[in-house]
Amino acid sequence: MASQGSDILKRKLYSIIFEAETPAGKAFDVILLFMIVASVVVVSLESVVSLRRDYLHLFQALEWAFTILFTIEYLLRIYSSGKPLNYIFSFFGIIDFLAIIPTYLSLFILGSQYLLVIRVFRLLRIARVFRLTRFVNEGQVLSKALRASLTKITVFLGVVLMMVIVVGALMYVIEGRQSGYTSIPKSIYWAIVTLTTVGFGDITPVTPLGQFLASLLMITGYGIIAVPTGIVSVELANAERMNTNTRVCPNCHKEGHAPTANFCDNCGYELHRKQEAVGNPA
Amino acid sequence: MASQGSDILKRKLYSIIFEAETPAGKAFDVILLFMIVASVVVVSLESVVSLRRDYLHLFQALEWAFTILFTIEYLLRIYSSGKPLNYIFSFFGIIDFLAIIPTYLSLFILGSQYLLVIRVFRLLRIARVFRLTRFVNEGQVLSKALRASLTKITVFLGVVLMMVIVVGALMYVIEGRQSGYTSIPKSIYWAIVTLTTVGFGDITPVTPLGQFLASLLMITGYGIIAVPTGIVSVELANAERMNTNTRVCPNCHKEGHAPTANFCDNCGYELHRKQEAVGNPA
Amino acid sequence: MASQGSDILKRKLYSIIFEAETPAGKAFDVILLFMIVASVVVVSLESVVSLRRDYLHLFQALEWAFTILFTIEYLLRIYSSGKPLNYIFSFFGIIDFLAIIPTYLSLFILGSQYLLVIRVFRLLRIARVFRLTRFVNEGQVLSKALRASLTKITVFLGVVLMMVIVVGALMYVIEGRQSGYTSIPKSIYWAIVTLTTVGFGDITPVTPLGQFLASLLMITGYGIIAVPTGIVSVELANAERMNTNTRVCPNCHKEGHAPTANFCDNCGYELHRKQEAVGNPA
Amino acid sequence: MASQGSDILKRKLYSIIFEAETPAGKAFDVILLFMIVASVVVVSLESVVSLRRDYLHLFQALEWAFTILFTIEYLLRIYSSGKPLNYIFSFFGIIDFLAIIPTYLSLFILGSQYLLVIRVFRLLRIARVFRLTRFVNEGQVLSKALRASLTKITVFLGVVLMMVIVVGALMYVIEGRQSGYTSIPKSIYWAIVTLTTVGFGDITPVTPLGQFLASLLMITGYGIIAVPTGIVSVELANAERMNTNTRVCPNCHKEGHAPTANFCDNCGYELHRKQEAVGNPA
Repeated sequence: MASQGSDILKRKLYSIIFEAETPAGKAFDVILLFMIVASVVVVSLESVVSLRRDYLHLFQALEWAFTILFTIEYLLRIYSSGKPLNYIFSFFGIIDFLAIIPTYLSLFILGSQYLLVIRVFRLLRIARVFRLTRFVNEGQVLSKALRASLTKITVFLGVVLMMVIVVGALMYVIEGRQSGYTSIPKSIYWAIVTLTTVGFGDITPVTPLGQFLASLLMITGYGIIAVPTGIVSVELANAERMNTNTRVCPNCHKEGHAPTANFCDNCGYELHRKQEAVGNPA
Repeated sequence: MASQGSDILKRKLYSIIFEAETPAGKAFDVILLFMIVASVVVVSLESVVSLRRDYLHLFQALEWAFTILFTIEYLLRIYSSGKPLNYIFSFFGIIDFLAIIPTYLSLFILGSQYLLVIRVFRLLRIARVFRLTRFVNEGQVLSKALRASLTKITVFLGVVLMMVIVVGALMYVIEGRQSGYTSIPKSIYWAIVTLTTVGFGDITPVTPLGQFLASLLMITGYGIIAVPTGIVSVELANAERMNTNTRVCPNCHKEGHAPTANFCDNCGYELHRKQEAVGNPA
Repeated sequence: MASQGSDILKRKLYSIIFEAETPAGKAFDVILLFMIVASVVVVSLESVVSLRRDYLHLFQALEWAFTILFTIEYLLRIYSSGKPLNYIFSFFGIIDFLAIIPTYLSLFILGSQYLLVIRVFRLLRIARVFRLTRFVNEGQVLSKALRASLTKITVFLGVVLMMVIVVGALMYVIEGRQSGYTSIPKSIYWAIVTLTTVGFGDITPVTPLGQFLASLLMITGYGIIAVPTGIVSVELANAERMNTNTRVCPNCHKEGHAPTANFCDNCGYELHRKQEAVGNPA
Repeated sequence: MASQGSDILKRKLYSIIFEAETPAGKAFDVILLFMIVASVVVVSLESVVSLRRDYLHLFQALEWAFTILFTIEYLLRIYSSGKPLNYIFSFFGIIDFLAIIPTYLSLFILGSQYLLVIRVFRLLRIARVFRLTRFVNEGQVLSKALRASLTKITVFLGVVLMMVIVVGALMYVIEGRQSGYTSIPKSIYWAIVTLTTVGFGDITPVTPLGQFLASLLMITGYGIIAVPTGIVSVELANAERMNTNTRVCPNCHKEGHAPTANFCDNCGYELHRKQEAVGNPA
């Protein structure tokens, strides 16, 4: 009977903590989101010298309060989820764990509490809370296109990496220590700063030959940004088309109908409605 | 009768101030545009130290002259528009109000007159003045594509925001105060400067680990610019296609059919072929 | 008879100077191109302090030699072209004139000889010399796409311009003189540096509010680069399609065949060859 | 017989060194890849002052060990390849040679050993080792699109080059020596830094006119990045389409038909419908 009572409790907790269908579940999630944002703001403000001097105790009290609440929430999630290990090693399980551990670590390692900002990733749950199915859908189209681009972008990044290593070493030989290129790793850092068109200006070439090589690198970086952009554009167009056009005309087998189409625009035959296609084939 | 006279006056004023069909209306709008540009130039030049020293009184006289004229114009707009509240709370009504108020405020708050540059937004009326319907049309295609991209770009910006918060906090822990990363908010500012490839160089990493993390952030920023670009390209291609496919279904009047469509995909009615529409029906 | 002799001379000169069909004409053009590049290099090197100290007389002699030769060429072009005024006020006529005048001006205005680098634009003739019809064709596709994008890009740049004016004025009010924002025009310059993601770092915000506004501007600039890119991509795809697909199937009227297609891929009917379509309709 | 023994040895060596089909061949390649990475890391670390002070002898010993091993490998490659000259003057033959020569040169020219990082290009063999045919395929689609874009990008870069030369000379005249624009070549370097939106900030305009011209250059650079991006996007979409449309004409074996094609556009023969090709011919 105790086991049955705990079972009911578990199910109730599960519906509140993991789902957002019931009023209680939704209220829980909204409060949680506000607490996450508030705790990240507190951690950020604590790092500002002038504020910490005046409000250190307030900040620390809030930090511990948030951490204890999140710890209770974490334990309840483990308890109420049917399969604790599945939750613990899921993406959100790991994020939830990393989001509480730095406060405890800060007792031993000074400054580790600033890592609490990892809590912002808990906000990824926001989509579920507000039932942003449209956002989730768009996110899937995006991530599908990015996955499809991955091989090409890996090839691209591999070539870019070889290029910055060689240019970095060349600049180290050409410019040398007195211009700020104090080692090859630092010169590679400079080559990345330059190729990506960031251009901090903390290290800059001063010899004519160095400036010439830097010019080549900048024009290359300016030009090859076109490559990942082109890749993602093409894949995004593909993913978009796939997402909207999965219906086939039963008469002429034409694919790629607009999502709002009722009739095949090639032969005029009536199309199955999208909903029917999923469940009951007429 | 007085009321009738005021009615005629109102209508006349309305046609001059709000419309650009009559010669008087067009002249009014052209003069207004020149005055807006002139007043923005005056405010800008007043802020230059060397010029203000010599011409302060001239600048202030001009500023008050423009403001008084714009105030009269604003009152006339309220008076002549049929429904004053509709105008006052419309987009242009608010802009018109904000464009005169800083001069009056400058009597109490020093320096607020520089906010007068908000007047430039009044130039958005320029399209109506020169009947730039083509520009308006292109602007609509653009804004339609941007609206369609909005959900995807919000998802993208949300992920980017989480990323700069976490990287900012990491850099604060790694580099610390002595490198210029004096607080987490400032480190987040640096992360935005770096991710967007702006790279001011006012704060730069000096430790090898910080430079390595910065390199990852730069390459990420360089690569993911492809995402919004790809999104907008695809949506713009869609909006363009919708805009140019002008065949209308003779049965249900649906617009925007694909160039290869033979039948309306809404009602299944046969469409006119594109060639026939132009001239000789075969 | 003298007139007839001068006519023959004129025609001969014309074929050498303006055309590149005969060996003499081609030789003339190749020598000219080399002289243009050499004269730009001489002007550039003359500006280097260490080189000018040692070789000033050599540089000046070369400069005058090139200028006198280009002047003779310019006069011969005027003489041999059938309609001198047409040439003088053509694009290349103006470039040719601007390419010789700075040397003469340098007698009166010190330093004006550096404007001689405008000679590089004379290199645009290079396409004609090497019969780079393919390059010319590609250039036409490019410039066609850019012309088609012009209206949209003007709308885009107009909005960007209003934005940098308002943000510039706001930063002037927020940051003030002590941060380097010494006037509104200079703040607008900073806003352009930031929005375009150049980020020199000569002026940077130091107040938290200024850094927050700068962050918004940077993210905006990073995001809206997608707009012109999307516009040009779409127009380029259109221009490309137009360039290759002008044949229509005589049987089913399908358009948009690949340039290498011999048969309609919709109905299998034989297509007219591209050459025939231009001249003799079979 | 000696010749026959050497022939067998040659063939065995060839299969180990040049191929990756056998276990021995694969092991050889994997070891080689690790050694390449290790040798590049050693060269990079040697350039760090603090590390060189302590481990100079270790670094030099490792450097010579790697170089001797790579030299032996290079000689074996020459020996075992059927046609030595073909290998020596092939792309990888030249890379392999350049990857060993700097160590020997460092006996005469101090610092030349840093050029050893050219060894990273030997990693391009990685694709063959892990049979990354998918990567090779994607790389071919990429390089095909880039080759197709080459003419347009050359036209684009030519115009950009003329622009930076003229703007560089103008800035030299406007800003002059005291602002850091010490010569025309250096001003051209600045113009490239600015146009590509890198913006180091080592040289920046200080006069209002110079800042105005710089603003124009920045907006131009920000806008025209759209051109190469658009070019590559369009060509990549073309290359992709060619790569994925795999239907072959049963009559003339032409590949790459559009997904909507019913007939071969080369010979007019009827194509199999896409659906039928997969499974059930209706």
